[in-house]
Amino acid sequence: MIEDKNKSNTKISELGEFGLIDHLTRGIKLRHKSSVKGIGDDAAVISGDIELQKIITTDLLVEGVHFDLGYMPLKHLGYKAVIVNLSDVYAMNAQPKQITVSIAVSNRFPVEALDELYDGIKTACKIYNVDLVGGDTTSSTSGLIISITAIGEAKKEDIVYRSGAKENDLLVISGDIGGAYLGLQVLEREKQVFKANPNSQPDLEPYTYLVERQLKPQARKDIVSLLKELEVVPTSMIDISDGLSSEILHICKASKTGCNIYEDKIPLDPQVISTCEEFELDSTTIAMSGGEDYELLFTIKTEDFPKIKANPNLTVIGHITAQKEGIHLITRANTKIPVIARGWNSLQEE
Amino acid sequence: MIEDKNKSNTKISELGEFGLIDHLTRGIKLRHKSSVKGIGDDAAVISGDIELQKIITTDLLVEGVHFDLGYMPLKHLGYKAVIVNLSDVYAMNAQPKQITVSIAVSNRFPVEALDELYDGIKTACKIYNVDLVGGDTTSSTSGLIISITAIGEAKKEDIVYRSGAKENDLLVISGDIGGAYLGLQVLEREKQVFKANPNSQPDLEPYTYLVERQLKPQARKDIVSLLKELEVVPTSMIDISDGLSSEILHICKASKTGCNIYEDKIPLDPQVISTCEEFELDSTTIAMSGGEDYELLFTIKTEDFPKIKANPNLTVIGHITAQKEGIHLITRANTKIPVIARGWNSLQEE
Repeated sequence: MIEDKNKSNTKISELGEFGLIDHLTRGIKLRHKSSVKGIGDDAAVISGDIELQKIITTDLLVEGVHFDLGYMPLKHLGYKAVIVNLSDVYAMNAQPKQITVSIAVSNRFPVEALDELYDGIKTACKIYNVDLVGGDTTSSTSGLIISITAIGEAKKEDIVYRSGAKENDLLVISGDIGGAYLGLQVLEREKQVFKANPNSQPDLEPYTYLVERQLKPQARKDIVSLLKELEVVPTSMIDISDGLSSEILHICKASKTGCNIYEDKIPLDPQVISTCEEFELDSTTIAMSGGEDYELLFTIKTEDFPKIKANPNLTVIGHITAQKEGIHLITRANTKIPVIARGWNSLQEE
Repeated sequence: MIEDKNKSNTKISELGEFGLIDHLTRGIKLRHKSSVKGIGDDAAVISGDIELQKIITTDLLVEGVHFDLGYMPLKHLGYKAVIVNLSDVYAMNAQPKQITVSIAVSNRFPVEALDELYDGIKTACKIYNVDLVGGDTTSSTSGLIISITAIGEAKKEDIVYRSGAKENDLLVISGDIGGAYLGLQVLEREKQVFKANPNSQPDLEPYTYLVERQLKPQARKDIVSLLKELEVVPTSMIDISDGLSSEILHICKASKTGCNIYEDKIPLDPQVISTCEEFELDSTTIAMSGGEDYELLFTIKTEDFPKIKANPNLTVIGHITAQKEGIHLITRANTKIPVIARGWNSLQEE
């Protein structure tokens, strides 16, 4: 990555709060007719529509908990912070339209660093066609804090909850999983190597896919469009932010069902398999508990199977059972293991 | 204040992230028909209405910047964190309907402390008739962080922006100002006294109004209802969070106008006047630059004056002029002083 070493360092205090907001939000254009009023008043205004329900989701990202600026470039961080919220909107089978962005920063960040962060935020807005309509900018006593709220919309009949899965429905996953977690392990290892020897040059070549999954994840906008084209309305849906186990448990709990997942069906990228071997990790455990994949997990009626079966983006990994049958992983050796939540949990004690 | 000294200390890690969310949001009932889906899915769902536009506003509160747990009880903090957002919705002449609450906490907080915080949040929701529909709960490496987003609604023709003030409009303020800032000064002083002598008992009796303005501010829900009753739609409106000077400048900048404010018209509580004398502070400076009053500042057409003049909650403090005339405070001695922003600015260097 080529960085401009001649960047100047403008102190945030030189601009002040309102000057900084003006600076960071300059040139922002509203794309959607529904974005009636963006930044610059006490609140944003969004038009209503009797046919469309609004979807609201919010995430709080804290430096040292959710990201490490040691290997996370600020531009990527801004991008990812938006993506994690949009993923939740897509998981409702809805289209995101607006976001608000609040940040708290300490004075150690020059304005140019925040420009990088906002570059990533604006790039995500452009690619995912959402309007940045508001937020809050304040100071922090320690690290960087980012809080984003996404607002989306969908017709009432299109919205998909976690709670609609029914016995015999097929459990489907988009893309492949486990990559983001392994990307983090690779970056952590390189950070330790760099600490021990600052002249070392990391060779990330064998891990490009994994590192990209961690640093520049994508939200599955395409899947929501694809399902619409295929005329499939999932019976339940959730995004995989905390790991497959955790999300399956959420769907089954909300839907009052059980589930069988087949180990040999879980889609893994070849880099996930080879890196698991290198790190001596079990790839199924990583897939089940890794998290941060931002893929979509959903259930469909069996009669919809022919519509999705040819699609390389979608994999059937199991099926819904009666609640009393429990939630199990069927291993390659054909043994049944109860699924327990081991997803990423930021509230666990270190 | 009587505190229960027998409270147990449950570690957050005993509950885990989802257990904690379940615990904190237990018993929450949705009051509004528009709150289609609250906590418990990837996102909240709110119904649309062609007649009603949605208002979105968000605030990020950081421990050590916006609040000091040394004198801010957690219950009050939760209450205030909601109020500051609702105030922004009222400032659009709209009714808040939903909020999302995200918190980041370190392990030094037991679950019981978060119960206190949520008690305050739930109390505010009850009093102001808003539904808690979502949020995020995560860990923090240092202090407590609270991010709240409020969603409101209003008919298009009722929404009031900062930008609608016109020459000759009257500038009106609700309630009185300066109290919250002085309350903070009193609390800061008592904190220093307590540090020097932990056996000292603070006598806050002469400052009850000021301390309440700081610790338990109210949003002016009543003013929005009152204006509706009086059939007055303000031409512009803003809430006073950063101080009167700062807000007047916002209105004039957005409306492309000037303004004259009369020093002798600024409404001050007797406790503000007496405490300013005690602290040797100029009460006008405090009123103009103090902030955190959460009163509403708005402009009305001169023909609407008869409708509001008898109301003890509303005071005309000036009038809008042409932009070229500038923005001035007319002092008691009848001199004109240009108004500059000296509001509370959390991004200024210490």
